[in-house]
Amino acid sequence: MRVKDLIEKKKNGEALTDNELRCLIEGYTKGEIPDYQMSAFAMAVCFRGMDFEETKVMTDAMMRSGDVVDLSLFGDTTVDKHSTGGVGDKTSLIIGPVAAALGCTVAKMSGRGLGHTGGTVDKLESIEGFETELSTERFYELVKETGIAVVGQSTELAPADKKLYSLRDATSTVNSIPLIASSIMSKKLAAGAKSIVLDVKTGSGAFMKDYESAAELARTMVEIGKALGRNMCALITDMDTPLGYAVGNSLEVKEAVAVLKGEDIPDLRKVCVALASSMVSLGKNISLAHAEKLVSEAIDSGAAFEKLKEWIGAQGGNTALLDDPTLFPEAPFKYEVKADREGYVFSMDAENIGNAACTLGAGRLRKDDPIDYSAGIVLKAKTGDYVKCGDTLAVFYTSERSFIEGAEALYRSAVVIGENKPEVTKLILGEVR
Amino acid sequence: MRVKDLIEKKKNGEALTDNELRCLIEGYTKGEIPDYQMSAFAMAVCFRGMDFEETKVMTDAMMRSGDVVDLSLFGDTTVDKHSTGGVGDKTSLIIGPVAAALGCTVAKMSGRGLGHTGGTVDKLESIEGFETELSTERFYELVKETGIAVVGQSTELAPADKKLYSLRDATSTVNSIPLIASSIMSKKLAAGAKSIVLDVKTGSGAFMKDYESAAELARTMVEIGKALGRNMCALITDMDTPLGYAVGNSLEVKEAVAVLKGEDIPDLRKVCVALASSMVSLGKNISLAHAEKLVSEAIDSGAAFEKLKEWIGAQGGNTALLDDPTLFPEAPFKYEVKADREGYVFSMDAENIGNAACTLGAGRLRKDDPIDYSAGIVLKAKTGDYVKCGDTLAVFYTSERSFIEGAEALYRSAVVIGENKPEVTKLILGEVR
Repeated sequence: MRVKDLIEKKKNGEALTDNELRCLIEGYTKGEIPDYQMSAFAMAVCFRGMDFEETKVMTDAMMRSGDVVDLSLFGDTTVDKHSTGGVGDKTSLIIGPVAAALGCTVAKMSGRGLGHTGGTVDKLESIEGFETELSTERFYELVKETGIAVVGQSTELAPADKKLYSLRDATSTVNSIPLIASSIMSKKLAAGAKSIVLDVKTGSGAFMKDYESAAELARTMVEIGKALGRNMCALITDMDTPLGYAVGNSLEVKEAVAVLKGEDIPDLRKVCVALASSMVSLGKNISLAHAEKLVSEAIDSGAAFEKLKEWIGAQGGNTALLDDPTLFPEAPFKYEVKADREGYVFSMDAENIGNAACTLGAGRLRKDDPIDYSAGIVLKAKTGDYVKCGDTLAVFYTSERSFIEGAEALYRSAVVIGENKPEVTKLILGEVR
Repeated sequence: MRVKDLIEKKKNGEALTDNELRCLIEGYTKGEIPDYQMSAFAMAVCFRGMDFEETKVMTDAMMRSGDVVDLSLFGDTTVDKHSTGGVGDKTSLIIGPVAAALGCTVAKMSGRGLGHTGGTVDKLESIEGFETELSTERFYELVKETGIAVVGQSTELAPADKKLYSLRDATSTVNSIPLIASSIMSKKLAAGAKSIVLDVKTGSGAFMKDYESAAELARTMVEIGKALGRNMCALITDMDTPLGYAVGNSLEVKEAVAVLKGEDIPDLRKVCVALASSMVSLGKNISLAHAEKLVSEAIDSGAAFEKLKEWIGAQGGNTALLDDPTLFPEAPFKYEVKADREGYVFSMDAENIGNAACTLGAGRLRKDDPIDYSAGIVLKAKTGDYVKCGDTLAVFYTSERSFIEGAEALYRSAVVIGENKPEVTKLILGEVR
């Protein structure tokens, strides 16, 4: 089998066989197939697509290119959630404890953030003492004791995907649903959970800018997961504006704590209840309606907050910060962005709000950049709110005064204020089960 | 300018600017742009194409990536011919002397053959003593003295094309008219002739299997050449069967000599007269009809044959072989392929006949393989001929008896004998001026 013939086949719109795809992925992972052939193949896929069978086999081959975590010792209760990346998305911090409080097992390997979206591991590390680098033995022990633990990704999950993703990024071949679906699912399946809930974001702050693409991606990923033996569902949620009000690591932890203490932050709570209900429904094999009732109770009764404290404490974090979030270190500089005209907040570009937070020190542009945990943004007005000239639109937090100017320019470019009230967009746009 | 943005632009079907294309080609030639980005770009071009302006600029940029030969010391009389590659194509050996005999200047750099088609330099080297490696000074001196000289390609013409062509070959991105046109024309323009005649082959033995693609390629190349200041024309000729009867280096030289001595080998003479007339018409700026008359006279009077001897002698070749071609060394083994049924030769697959000759030792599969100059095939029956069982279809010549079996299998697979007489196909299918 010559690689150029496989490229030719895909270029001509034909489907590759199981064996052809596995040889391609294995050869590429081992370095036997050069980048220049793989990038030509990826470009052909961008134009010709892959059918479901091909996408499934590609996912499976990439999943098997590295370690595959075995969580079977926890039975069928293991649940995981994956978000395609959003701004201000602190849902993992909320739904993890909720699911664990209801008897699901959350044994999560999580990544760090890059660019305008934050990573769960970074957010957790903003809690004094919290340890994300644990041995596998200690990780499993904690999961057994408390039902939940979250560690940084230490083993090499789906190295084929890592290599292919960098290549696609450099060759404008990212934007293909079969390639995105196999990329996400290969890592998620390798992480081992029996039930997986996907949160596919759509809108200005998301990778998928339109609903139809997001829905197709969601359907593809759900079908792949099912075909490979997992319980799956996906929600398609709005990411036209950031989720909740806080963007930045410790700011987001504080907001997550508030939700678990019963504070009603409407959009954030709504998305969290929907995601957690799906997780619990799959993980406990109960109806969605029943799961929804249990999830609301777990939040309102404080059971989920107690589980959060138990978990954070078990991983070495200072739980006093959770009881009294005002104890979190505050950034030395605080700056209020004021409205320069009166009107409705007509739209917010979530991606650029994420970039503004990043500029303030909350994120990293390169893999090894340090992070300022206290830096970020608290929104004071969101899409649909009416503001007067001089009203505070947002509060910036940073350790470097010089960062403010650039961040403000980004923030102002992201927020459109106009005379007309915008239409209310739905938060949960669709679901695939 | 980021290369990935240029790839994205082409992927979206947009045209690249002059500056963008030049940066791409320059960066790639210098090794600043990696193969994996260039192959993704080439694949995007396969799907999206390039408009005429892009193709022209790409050709010009590749031409300028290396040496550009300056033949202006010979005025406007320099002529060149390029064939897209055929089996048994010995036209250069015939039309060069014809054009030189009629006052055109033929200062040709020619390549060696690879795969199923032979190279002019290899054919010339089958003449004892003929020297193809000359210094530029000596090359020009000979051109001045006799009006014609042919040397191997010593200077680096269009290295960008060389690099890109290897990459395209490995990534199934050969098959794109803008890429083929810019590849051929960048080298041809760098070789310096003022007037260029293209022989675009179509049919089973050609790169372009159908007429419409061949015609589009011809039109594109003619327009590029004109836009970059050359006199251009193209013929689209049939390569469904080999041209003439001889396939193999010294066998083809002998056939070329026969044509220049007035022997009527219908298809070969016809194509040569058409090509030479176009060259003379452009090089001398006279009408095509007038040129045709002069070309026939130059052949029939023996003037072209005298020019051939003068040229070959000047480059050190033994002209006694031209006076008496039976003096060419004959291959030790001679083998007749017999018809195994009666009927019309319905079709011949020229590519596989070329491969059979290659198998006998006439060609090379790798760049540095040696060549057996006396090896090859002389056809005894061509498409449309009626053969009886046991009639000789072809005579094989080789220095290695063991090569015969494989070559015969290839040859038999290439020749279809049937009850019906095939339709006569035209030899010269179209022209672009």
